Amino acid sequence: MSVLTSGDHPDTASGATAANGTNGAQVDLGPATALSCRECGERFPLGPIFACTSCFGPLEIAYDFPTEGPEALRARIAAGPNNIWRYAPLLPVPADVAEHPNLNPGCTPLVRADRLAAELGITGELHIKDDSGNPTHSFKDRVVANAVEAARAFGFTTLSCSSTGNLAGAVGAAAARAGLRSCVFIPHDLEQGKVVMAAVYGGELVAIEGTYDDVNRFCSELIGDPIGEGWGFVNVNLRPYYAEGSKTLAYEICEQLGWKLPDQLVIPIASGSQLTKIDKGLKELIQLGLVEDRPYKIFGAQAEGCSPVSRAFKDGHDVVRPVKPDTIAKSLAIGNPADGPYVLDIARRTGGAVEDVDDEQIVAAIKLLARTEGIFAETAGGVTVGVTRKLLAAGVLDPAATTVVLNTGDGLKTLDAVAGTTGPSATIRPNLDSFREAGLA
Amino acid sequence: MSVLTSGDHPDTASGATAANGTNGAQVDLGPATALSCRECGERFPLGPIFACTSCFGPLEIAYDFPTEGPEALRARIAAGPNNIWRYAPLLPVPADVAEHPNLNPGCTPLVRADRLAAELGITGELHIKDDSGNPTHSFKDRVVANAVEAARAFGFTTLSCSSTGNLAGAVGAAAARAGLRSCVFIPHDLEQGKVVMAAVYGGELVAIEGTYDDVNRFCSELIGDPIGEGWGFVNVNLRPYYAEGSKTLAYEICEQLGWKLPDQLVIPIASGSQLTKIDKGLKELIQLGLVEDRPYKIFGAQAEGCSPVSRAFKDGHDVVRPVKPDTIAKSLAIGNPADGPYVLDIARRTGGAVEDVDDEQIVAAIKLLARTEGIFAETAGGVTVGVTRKLLAAGVLDPAATTVVLNTGDGLKTLDAVAGTTGPSATIRPNLDSFREAGLA
Repeated sequence: MSVLTSGDHPDTASGATAANGTNGAQVDLGPATALSCRECGERFPLGPIFACTSCFGPLEIAYDFPTEGPEALRARIAAGPNNIWRYAPLLPVPADVAEHPNLNPGCTPLVRADRLAAELGITGELHIKDDSGNPTHSFKDRVVANAVEAARAFGFTTLSCSSTGNLAGAVGAAAARAGLRSCVFIPHDLEQGKVVMAAVYGGELVAIEGTYDDVNRFCSELIGDPIGEGWGFVNVNLRPYYAEGSKTLAYEICEQLGWKLPDQLVIPIASGSQLTKIDKGLKELIQLGLVEDRPYKIFGAQAEGCSPVSRAFKDGHDVVRPVKPDTIAKSLAIGNPADGPYVLDIARRTGGAVEDVDDEQIVAAIKLLARTEGIFAETAGGVTVGVTRKLLAAGVLDPAATTVVLNTGDGLKTLDAVAGTTGPSATIRPNLDSFREAGLA
Repeated sequence: MSVLTSGDHPDTASGATAANGTNGAQVDLGPATALSCRECGERFPLGPIFACTSCFGPLEIAYDFPTEGPEALRARIAAGPNNIWRYAPLLPVPADVAEHPNLNPGCTPLVRADRLAAELGITGELHIKDDSGNPTHSFKDRVVANAVEAARAFGFTTLSCSSTGNLAGAVGAAAARAGLRSCVFIPHDLEQGKVVMAAVYGGELVAIEGTYDDVNRFCSELIGDPIGEGWGFVNVNLRPYYAEGSKTLAYEICEQLGWKLPDQLVIPIASGSQLTKIDKGLKELIQLGLVEDRPYKIFGAQAEGCSPVSRAFKDGHDVVRPVKPDTIAKSLAIGNPADGPYVLDIARRTGGAVEDVDDEQIVAAIKLLARTEGIFAETAGGVTVGVTRKLLAAGVLDPAATTVVLNTGDGLKTLDAVAGTTGPSATIRPNLDSFREAGLA
C-alpha cells in the first residue's frame, strides 16, 4: 500500500495549504482539532493526509469534545436533524453541516427481531441495524457524507474513489448532490447493474483494464501526480475523515436503545475500519457520559472465502496474513484488510471473537432474515446473520443478552446470490382447479 | 372489474364476522368508525368489503378524528415514532400500532432540490419527496402497512395480492415481518429480478400462465371461493384500509415543510388512488387546523404510453377511456385506472392539470434528477420530474411557487430503463498516459 503524507507529496498537500492557510488552523471541521497517529501519537494539522510522516501509522481525528454534560448533549442531539448530522458535535464537520447539500444518511431503523430471535434460540433482545435504508442503500453513505465535508473544507473540487460496488454509487450520488465533480475508477469487467449505479449520477466513470488491485495502484499514482491536484479520494487522502462516518452507527444504535450500550454487536469485516470505528464511537459515548460505562463484546464476521482476520483470531496471531478472496460476499472481499490487527485487538479486549461462514451459509442466512423479519440483506448481511447463528451454536454468543447485528447493504444489489435458489412455489393456469392441484390451497 | 361486498360473498365476509362480532363494533381500528360510499354516502360497518351494496361505488374510511386542537395534535405527532405511525390518530389503525411487528415505513426524506430547480428555471422552493427510502424502496410499503393492521383486525391469516412488481415485494416483506402467511400472484413471464424480490421473503409466490389481467381475474375468483376464506387481498378486499396509507405522504410533506401546505404537487398516476388520497390527506390537515386553509394545486403525471387520464383531461372529458399500456414506466401501467375520474375532478378543482411524457423524456428526467440531486429514481420518478419540466415549459406550473415532486420508487428496480445509455466515460489502461489520452484529466 502506498503511504502518502503532505511531506511526501507537496502537490497534493498544496490543495490543503491553499484552504488551510499555513497551519490548518483556518479549517473549520467543528470539534476536530488535529490528526493524530494511531501508532506513535504524533499530531498533524488537519489536512488531506492519512499516514504519519514519522512511523507511517494511520492517522485519526483528534477532537475537542463538548463539555456541556450528558443531559444537555443528549437534548442537543435529540433536537438535531433526523440523520447523522444530529451527531455533528462528535464528527469532523462544521456546526452548520446540516445546511450544506449532502445526502444526509443515517437514522436507519434498528429493527427489534423477535421472530429471528425465536428461530435462533435467542431469549434476550435481538436487533438488526438495517443500513439498507440509507440513500444509496448501504452504510457507505455515512462515510462518504463525512468525506464530502472534508473535501469542501480543503477546497477540493473533484470527489474520487476506487470501487467495485457500493462505494462507487455512494460517491457518484454524494458528489452530484454536493455539486462536486466526481471521477470514480472501477475494474472494466464489473456486472452491468453496478456499472449503471455508478454511472447514472453523471460523473466521470473510468473503467480500468485490470484487476481491482490495478485500479488501486493507479489511484495512488494519480494522487501523487499534478493531475490529482484538487482531488479528494474519499478512501485515500480523505480517509481519516471518511472513516469517522462509521462512528455514527455506534451513536445511533445506543440512542435507539434509549442511550444504552448493547451487550453484544456482530459487525462485518472488509478492511476492518467500520468495526474499529464503531468501537471508537462506543468508547466516546462512555467517555462523554452519554451511556453507562459497562462492558460490551464485539464480534467480527467474515466470509470463509475471504477470512484472513478470522483465521488470525483462531490461530492466536496478531498479524493478518493476506488472502486472495473467493466469496459471493464481494463487498467484504478485501484480502489484505488494513485494520485487521486493530480488529483482532478489539475482539480480544472486549471478550468477543471473529468467525466466518461459507457461501451456502450466507445464502441461508439471507433467506432466514428475509423470511423472519422482511429484511432483504445483501451478502454482507448474510455474513453477519450467519456468523450470529454459528456463534450461538458454539456457545460463544450469549443468547440471553441484548445483541445487535448489522446489515450494511441491500439485497437488490446482490440478487445473484439468491437468484438461483429463489423462485415461484408453483406455476399454474388461471383457474381454481389448477390452484388446488398445486397443493397451495 | 369484479365488485365484491359482504352481501355478495358470505364466505369472505364470514372472516370479518368472526372477528367483528355481528356488527363490526368490536373491531379496533383507532379513529376509523365505518366504511362510507364515496358515491352515495351509505355507511357500512368496518369489514373486508370495498364496494357499496347499493350503488357499487368505492368505499372509504369514515373517522372520528381527534378534537384536542391543532397544537396538542401537532405535539402528539411530534412525540410519535419516526415512521407513519406518528399519524396513527388519523389512520385506520389501533392506537398501539407501533408496538405491532410491521415494516414501519415512512418519514422518508423531503429533499430540497436547489440544483434541479436551477436547471428547470424554478425560482421558488423545489422539493423531492423521495419514497425510495422505504423498507422495500417504494411507496407501496405505506399502503401495505395499513392493510396489515386491517388484516390483523379481521383475523386474516394470509396476506395476498396480484402484482407485477413493487407490490409483490412489499406484501412479501410485510407478511414475513408480521408473521402472516403470504400468497402473491404474478404473471409467469416477469423479469427475474422482480421474481427474486417477490420470492425471497419465503411466502408462496404463484406464477400464472397468462397476462396481468388474467392474474387479476383469477384473484377475484379466489376471493369468492371458500379457498379464499381468511385471505386479505391488500388491493381488493382490504383496499379501503390499504389506500389510506397514501394519506401519510400528504401528512409528511406538510410536517416536513413546517406544517405548511405546498403550493403545487406533482404526483404520478397509476390507478389514481395515491393522488386522490394525498388530496384527501391535505383536506384533513386543513379541517383539523394543522395547516392554514389556502389553495394548493395538484398535477397528475402519466407516461405517454399509458395516459388515459391525461388524455381525458386534455379532451375535457369526465370519463376515462381505457388503453393498452406500452411504456417503460411499468409501475404506472394501469390502462383502466379505477380512480381516474376522481383524479380529473381534483386536478380541475384545484387548478392543476394532468400531463404525460414519452419514454425518452422519462429516461432524460431520471438522469437529470440523478445528476443534480444524487437521487436514482425508478421510471415513475422519471415521469413526475419529466412532467414537471414539461409543465414549466408550458407555463402551467408556477416557477416561483413552492413545489413538491414525488419519487415513489427506486432506480435499482428499473435498471433496464437507463442501462442502454449509461456507462463508463472511458475505458483505459492503468497508467497516467492512458488517462491523459482519454481527455478526462
